[in-house]
Amino acid sequence: MKALLVVAHGSRREASNEEVRELARRLAAHADNTYDCTESAFLELANPSIPEGIQHCIDQGADEVTVLPYFLSAGRHVVEDIPAEVHVKQQEHPQIDIHIAPYLGGASGIVDVMLSIAT
Amino acid sequence: MKALLVVAHGSRREASNEEVRELARRLAAHADNTYDCTESAFLELANPSIPEGIQHCIDQGADEVTVLPYFLSAGRHVVEDIPAEVHVKQQEHPQIDIHIAPYLGGASGIVDVMLSIAT
Repeated sequence: MKALLVVAHGSRREASNEEVRELARRLAAHADNTYDCTESAFLELANPSIPEGIQHCIDQGADEVTVLPYFLSAGRHVVEDIPAEVHVKQQEHPQIDIHIAPYLGGASGIVDVMLSIAT
Repeated sequence: MKALLVVAHGSRREASNEEVRELARRLAAHADNTYDCTESAFLELANPSIPEGIQHCIDQGADEVTVLPYFLSAGRHVVEDIPAEVHVKQQEHPQIDIHIAPYLGGASGIVDVMLSIAT
């Protein structure tokens, strides 16, 4: 069973966190049957945390969890903080395949999305 | 003459700012002939500023400038700060059409990009 966990920074502005949760729901609706579980989690300032989000996926039966960093640049959060949190959960659950997808800002498709909203 | 100005937050980490500049170059390469000028600018912490970026587009002959917020959520920067800076430049140059495109995180195409990098 596959799970997709969208990981965002988290904000003091609750509406921004809710935008991420809504995005996870849209992903669930668009992913057809690729993922049995599509969730969101936050590095800080909002809940659930990344470990809690991963655990929730596992509790629902996931044996493969894809963590997708919803970040625009490959800063410390993407390069160090998220991998560190994922590593801890991977050690706890060696039988689960937990891997990190490329961060959003590095996706080549961003260019087309930007041109589509610019015109 | 049309210009596209990608506006990002700006970071103390210069590599993140350079990612945005590189994105603007990729946009230029993918936009065919829609824009005669594709630039980047930053709300804070990096150069050029938003007014400088808009001015640069005008100096190059733009009579229409599309400001595209490279942001993931509709927080204060997107809702207040960027419009305020654009408004000042619009007042300075009433003959130029300066408008703000939707911010990246609100684009429906983001969902497809995320699914493409997740799998």
